[in-house]
Amino acid sequence: MDEISIGLIGFGTIGSGVVQILKENQAILEARTGFRIKLKRIADLDIHTDRGVSFDESILTTDAYQIIRDPEISIVIELMGGCEPARTFITEAIRNGKSVVTANKALLAEHGLEVFETARENSTDIAFEAAVAGGIPILRSLREGLIANKFDKILAILNGTCNFILSEMTDNPGASFNETLQRAQKLGYAETDPTLDIEGIDSAHKLVLVLALTHGIHATLQNIHVEGITRIDPFDLVMAREFSYKIKLLAMIIRHGTKVEVRLHPTMIPQNHPLAQVDGVFNGIFLRGDMVGDQLFYGRGAGREPTASAVIADVIELIRNRRLGKAGRVPPLGYPGHLASADSVLDMNEVVTNYYIRIQAIDRPGVLSRIAGIMADHNISIHSVVQKRRDRSGAGAVPVVFITHSAKEADVQKARQKIGNLDVVDAPPAIIRIEDEDLD
Amino acid sequence: MDEISIGLIGFGTIGSGVVQILKENQAILEARTGFRIKLKRIADLDIHTDRGVSFDESILTTDAYQIIRDPEISIVIELMGGCEPARTFITEAIRNGKSVVTANKALLAEHGLEVFETARENSTDIAFEAAVAGGIPILRSLREGLIANKFDKILAILNGTCNFILSEMTDNPGASFNETLQRAQKLGYAETDPTLDIEGIDSAHKLVLVLALTHGIHATLQNIHVEGITRIDPFDLVMAREFSYKIKLLAMIIRHGTKVEVRLHPTMIPQNHPLAQVDGVFNGIFLRGDMVGDQLFYGRGAGREPTASAVIADVIELIRNRRLGKAGRVPPLGYPGHLASADSVLDMNEVVTNYYIRIQAIDRPGVLSRIAGIMADHNISIHSVVQKRRDRSGAGAVPVVFITHSAKEADVQKARQKIGNLDVVDAPPAIIRIEDEDLD
Repeated sequence: MDEISIGLIGFGTIGSGVVQILKENQAILEARTGFRIKLKRIADLDIHTDRGVSFDESILTTDAYQIIRDPEISIVIELMGGCEPARTFITEAIRNGKSVVTANKALLAEHGLEVFETARENSTDIAFEAAVAGGIPILRSLREGLIANKFDKILAILNGTCNFILSEMTDNPGASFNETLQRAQKLGYAETDPTLDIEGIDSAHKLVLVLALTHGIHATLQNIHVEGITRIDPFDLVMAREFSYKIKLLAMIIRHGTKVEVRLHPTMIPQNHPLAQVDGVFNGIFLRGDMVGDQLFYGRGAGREPTASAVIADVIELIRNRRLGKAGRVPPLGYPGHLASADSVLDMNEVVTNYYIRIQAIDRPGVLSRIAGIMADHNISIHSVVQKRRDRSGAGAVPVVFITHSAKEADVQKARQKIGNLDVVDAPPAIIRIEDEDLD
Repeated sequence: MDEISIGLIGFGTIGSGVVQILKENQAILEARTGFRIKLKRIADLDIHTDRGVSFDESILTTDAYQIIRDPEISIVIELMGGCEPARTFITEAIRNGKSVVTANKALLAEHGLEVFETARENSTDIAFEAAVAGGIPILRSLREGLIANKFDKILAILNGTCNFILSEMTDNPGASFNETLQRAQKLGYAETDPTLDIEGIDSAHKLVLVLALTHGIHATLQNIHVEGITRIDPFDLVMAREFSYKIKLLAMIIRHGTKVEVRLHPTMIPQNHPLAQVDGVFNGIFLRGDMVGDQLFYGRGAGREPTASAVIADVIELIRNRRLGKAGRVPPLGYPGHLASADSVLDMNEVVTNYYIRIQAIDRPGVLSRIAGIMADHNISIHSVVQKRRDRSGAGAVPVVFITHSAKEADVQKARQKIGNLDVVDAPPAIIRIEDEDLD
């Protein structure tokens, strides 16, 4: 049986999962592929911590170049994360003719074009299924299985930490964002420094990759609206339930002819939407193809074994390509030629959607009329309004919640500022966008 | 730009969808692949009916051999269905060095080994994503994206006709199977002769293919338990709801070490199971991989454009393989070598699961005790029992419903026969198996 040598750079959680799967499922992998994968070397700065997997420890090294420069190794797995030195290592590996498997969404979202171009010049492949939605085979589904479709709409829950926090806040009315975050940290579902997750950066990196694969548009975080979940108030979740909605942090790509809406923010979706059932640390991708119609992919978007499962699937794909003697069977970003310009991304100000607007207003005659007047001045038509006295009796301000008909983002932002400046209003209104096809 | 000539045999609904997509999405397909697909010829016995798509009608022929023997054509799409002459056409095309895309689950389930062996001998590829779950890219996900996993459990709704009928019967309490079937026929969701769908044959063919891909076991319909939905009584759906279940026709593959349960029958699943939300004509595949955990794939499992979308994805994959100069990049049935013997399928009599048992019994003292006694004699332990008087007042027999703890199929069948022979019982008890992990 053919033996193919591979190397692993970055021996953290996912790296340990790769070692575990190669060992535990060796027999079935060999039966399915007809070749043997030999993990020849593992590089990490820390080669002493016990990772809870058993393997020949003599393959450990602190020097990544023992992998990058080893002519026997044909596939390099990069699981360090971060931009440097991952970028240098990957680039060097490619220049040495190796194919690369990575889960590094930050690197690919920020320097993908350059890395892919280097791979093309050197006739090697880069695969990165593990970078988006962990164990769910969504990238190869978008890039290959659904290749005959224009993607009219993609709505995706791509960050398990945020989805866990929002699910918990939904199930425990009144629980604040901060206490729920702490709970997630205790359970190991949130990092000690959770910024990348809760501010939406991690999801946005994944969104950039999905956008490139599905629309051939290479955007950066600067081209798209990115908003995390830190400003969600427990009251918003209570109201969401009253309106039969759930709040999810959604990565959204919506096509309008040649322009595409690309945005990442907390979103209210109907409770009967397929994504509304995607709770806890799970990820879900809902898509509408012009030919296939609606589809949902659901599964674990993070974690040691699920993510390692995606890494190994990529390793096998790249080995298969190399055995055919050729890389580039499938263009890594979905389009072989030039990517469309980021100009195709619709300006956020031009986005038209429905809004949930929460305002803390003094309970006094005429206030509602002044607020509604400002909305009317900005072409914002109101679908429904609810005024509630919160449990904090005695407080002067009460929350008033509006659901709007379709309105333009620029108008809503202007109205938001004007309303926030009213003397009878506590703070700038809180806004959560709504994705509800039954609302006009 | 390279131009690759393909031919289409069978110009029915899906064939028209293929023509439509190649035309409507030509630009995006070319951008994504870097080559042009030229549909050079279409063969069908009927070349006169208007299919609602516009194309150069001079490519129509009644002679399939104008495709099979055309040296310019490298890919043949077979969409005739049925075993003959499809088998002969496919075999001839392969012998002429062509790669084949087909949606013909009946042919592959019954003669797959032979067809795949012919392809191997002739170094060509066969792809059949469209044969299972229409537009959902489930086969390539199982075969490639999830290749690092042992599949512990697969539960799948693979027939839209049956799922539509069961969904309708659930939503319209009291509606009989026959009247719902007629409704489905009127809406175009069921064929004039619906036998293959409602008797479970169509789902079973798909199950055979999924079993081969995931476990390397080539079974036939004779090796597996196949049961359709024709015996579902409206009352069962009412009871299902009371127990917080839904009834779905499930294709099931459950691994127990080296043995695998393979069965296709109506199944009660908890209302909060991911598959319980898969309603109407939609298909859904729930799977549990030993590494990825639980996943769900949801989408349209039939219909012109969704199925044609899968056909075209396969065409592109096979063209890519041929451009690399080699077929067999991915073994068509998931395993390159010998398939496991069908002996690996657990005898249905050995299956252990939970049961819903409905008995029409005369309402008379001692009857329940006699029935319960027979169950006890056969090691069937009762989890709950409900006795209801139906709306037909005055009738002598009332339905009694049992939910069992885990019991063995052989025992349940023996008890079923004995209970059916009781003079106080109207007919053999009706049995619906339950898939509920919270039930012991």
